[in-house]
Amino acid sequence: MFMEIALKEAKKANKKDEVPIGAVIVKDNKVIAKGYNKREKSKNAINHAEIVAIKRACRKLKDWRLENCEMYVTLKPCPMCAGAISNARIKRIYYGAEETNSKDNLCEQIFLSTRLNHKVELVKLEEYSSICSELLSSFFKNHRQKK
Amino acid sequence: MFMEIALKEAKKANKKDEVPIGAVIVKDNKVIAKGYNKREKSKNAINHAEIVAIKRACRKLKDWRLENCEMYVTLKPCPMCAGAISNARIKRIYYGAEETNSKDNLCEQIFLSTRLNHKVELVKLEEYSSICSELLSSFFKNHRQKK
Repeated sequence: MFMEIALKEAKKANKKDEVPIGAVIVKDNKVIAKGYNKREKSKNAINHAEIVAIKRACRKLKDWRLENCEMYVTLKPCPMCAGAISNARIKRIYYGAEETNSKDNLCEQIFLSTRLNHKVELVKLEEYSSICSELLSSFFKNHRQKK
Repeated sequence: MFMEIALKEAKKANKKDEVPIGAVIVKDNKVIAKGYNKREKSKNAINHAEIVAIKRACRKLKDWRLENCEMYVTLKPCPMCAGAISNARIKRIYYGAEETNSKDNLCEQIFLSTRLNHKVELVKLEEYSSICSELLSSFFKNHRQKK
């Protein structure tokens, strides 16, 4: 299952002391790109898991349009990543954990926005929700203890 | 004036047959990074002017936090760029042209979102509005004629 691969990516981030989030892009039932969050190590605000995966998929397909592609991501995307997913014309997003510190619906609004003549479907994979969020909460717990 | 530099960047994009949008990041009254849209040439959905400038500024400051930085951009940011600006903790955005094909207020919502404990100020520079939007409309006009 593709979310398992996204989880493996998230665990790579965890090992490098980065917030554990992973993403996978799939086309025709094949993984074409993977990525994990590397904001701290790269010292770059852009390098969320989704962005890393999108950049790689664009390179692979030699196109900024990732048409008929789907993404599996362990956490519901932030506005930057939701915008990037929409700009890249990705068709459907499967996510695991819910954002806990925001009750806005910006991701949904961005995916349903009429500005691009492209809508992104958002699907929550309930069966992966707790494993994805436990990975995040244990990271933050360890982080607080270290401090 | 910093918007003049952003306009010069936008014109570089124009010459390369890219949608003419330019951005400049300023800290302590000095330009620390510039960028122009290069989505087509780089075949990468992420490479809007703002993102190119943020990546360069992070590299320059060796930090993903662009604190006390301001951005001048010729067009009001899309949701991806608004999210990136917010994630990078940029303080204030000055923009020229209004988005014409969307009446949503996603940029404002993202900048005022409570998710990050950081708010971004958005300032429209009325005096640059028409020159920035004319650059865009003449690009699209030429583009349609070529087709």
